Amino acid sequence: MTDKQISRAVIRRLPRYFRYLGELKDDGIEKISSQELSEIMHVTASQIRQDLNNFGGFGQQGYGYNVSFLYDEIGKILGLNHTHSLVLIGAGNLGRALAGYVNFEKRGFIMKGIFDISPEVIGDTIRDIPIMPIEEMPAFIKENNIDIGVIAIPKTAAVAIAKTLVDCGVRAIWNFSHIDLDVPDDVIVESVHLSESLMRLSYNINVYNSEHGIWEDD
Amino acid sequence: MTDKQISRAVIRRLPRYFRYLGELKDDGIEKISSQELSEIMHVTASQIRQDLNNFGGFGQQGYGYNVSFLYDEIGKILGLNHTHSLVLIGAGNLGRALAGYVNFEKRGFIMKGIFDISPEVIGDTIRDIPIMPIEEMPAFIKENNIDIGVIAIPKTAAVAIAKTLVDCGVRAIWNFSHIDLDVPDDVIVESVHLSESLMRLSYNINVYNSEHGIWEDD
Repeated sequence: MTDKQISRAVIRRLPRYFRYLGELKDDGIEKISSQELSEIMHVTASQIRQDLNNFGGFGQQGYGYNVSFLYDEIGKILGLNHTHSLVLIGAGNLGRALAGYVNFEKRGFIMKGIFDISPEVIGDTIRDIPIMPIEEMPAFIKENNIDIGVIAIPKTAAVAIAKTLVDCGVRAIWNFSHIDLDVPDDVIVESVHLSESLMRLSYNINVYNSEHGIWEDD
Repeated sequence: MTDKQISRAVIRRLPRYFRYLGELKDDGIEKISSQELSEIMHVTASQIRQDLNNFGGFGQQGYGYNVSFLYDEIGKILGLNHTHSLVLIGAGNLGRALAGYVNFEKRGFIMKGIFDISPEVIGDTIRDIPIMPIEEMPAFIKENNIDIGVIAIPKTAAVAIAKTLVDCGVRAIWNFSHIDLDVPDDVIVESVHLSESLMRLSYNINVYNSEHGIWEDD
């Protein structure tokens, strides 16, 4: 594999290519030129060619890209040809939203168990996935070969849970708590910090306002 | 303002600086060197100096950064000295999670109304915010000077809702639906694509596995 030399910026864009190619495939489109892909994705054709060249010659001069082939190849690069077993910690609204996404399962991310501390929700299920007491998590992880832990609890409890996950041998953490988790180098963390996303939105409004002389003083 | 020359990479990092500085401030810490900040944030001290230099001389040689001052200045750059009025579209689990975050309100993001199509939830409230029928959204937006719309509905309905929001004069959209919204250039869109985040996680597991000769064939 040549993955190691691929820049993080390209990696960040790959899931978006995958999404567009999946839609094209669903629409029965077999091939597409970098120019056409450029128009629907709103990135330059040269950027597309450059990005996709990282993975070897998927495109053919004068023919374009084979949609289905490129979709499969990017899927492999993203590791979507393997399945992953997940546990979710936190059966609050965010956790329920995450457990409810059937599309994750289609991509090979299988949620096996949900854990919470609240007696009111323990024993319930979400899409047939049982909600269990947090004390049972370590044994469950080992018995079910769980490789990804999803943290959807407040930051005060997140650090201890991350440590437990790592101690149980989980390989990766999908973190929604508002804190950066300190884990060993061989554990992968992908964080979704919602408030940071909201601040970027706010920043862009602010820049727009100052460029256009709009001030909303309140 | 000097914002215009600031690279997108620096902008992406600003909310994280803001978060760490807020924690330091809460802990009563008044000043911090780039070296100390480097250690807690796990980025190099030279990166920190370079990033913060973009906004003029916040740091002082031999003294370090004034935490409270830097926090406030970054807050202003992020537009957090203004308040924003939001509507949420979609009172499902994800919408409920977003409406439930009291911290957004502390940062000046005030959710004024929630809209849904399901008769079962209309009339309910989340943190005293009423859930109203979607037909009432346009009038509500105009009467309440809403500037941000939050889309937490499936992608099939998201395009039409985004158009309605723009027609009603909303300035920015925080988009959680699994689609890129096509809006006029003067409308700001910040998207949180959860499945893309999960694919980046999967990619990193895959790279790790191939580097370490681990293959989980299933």
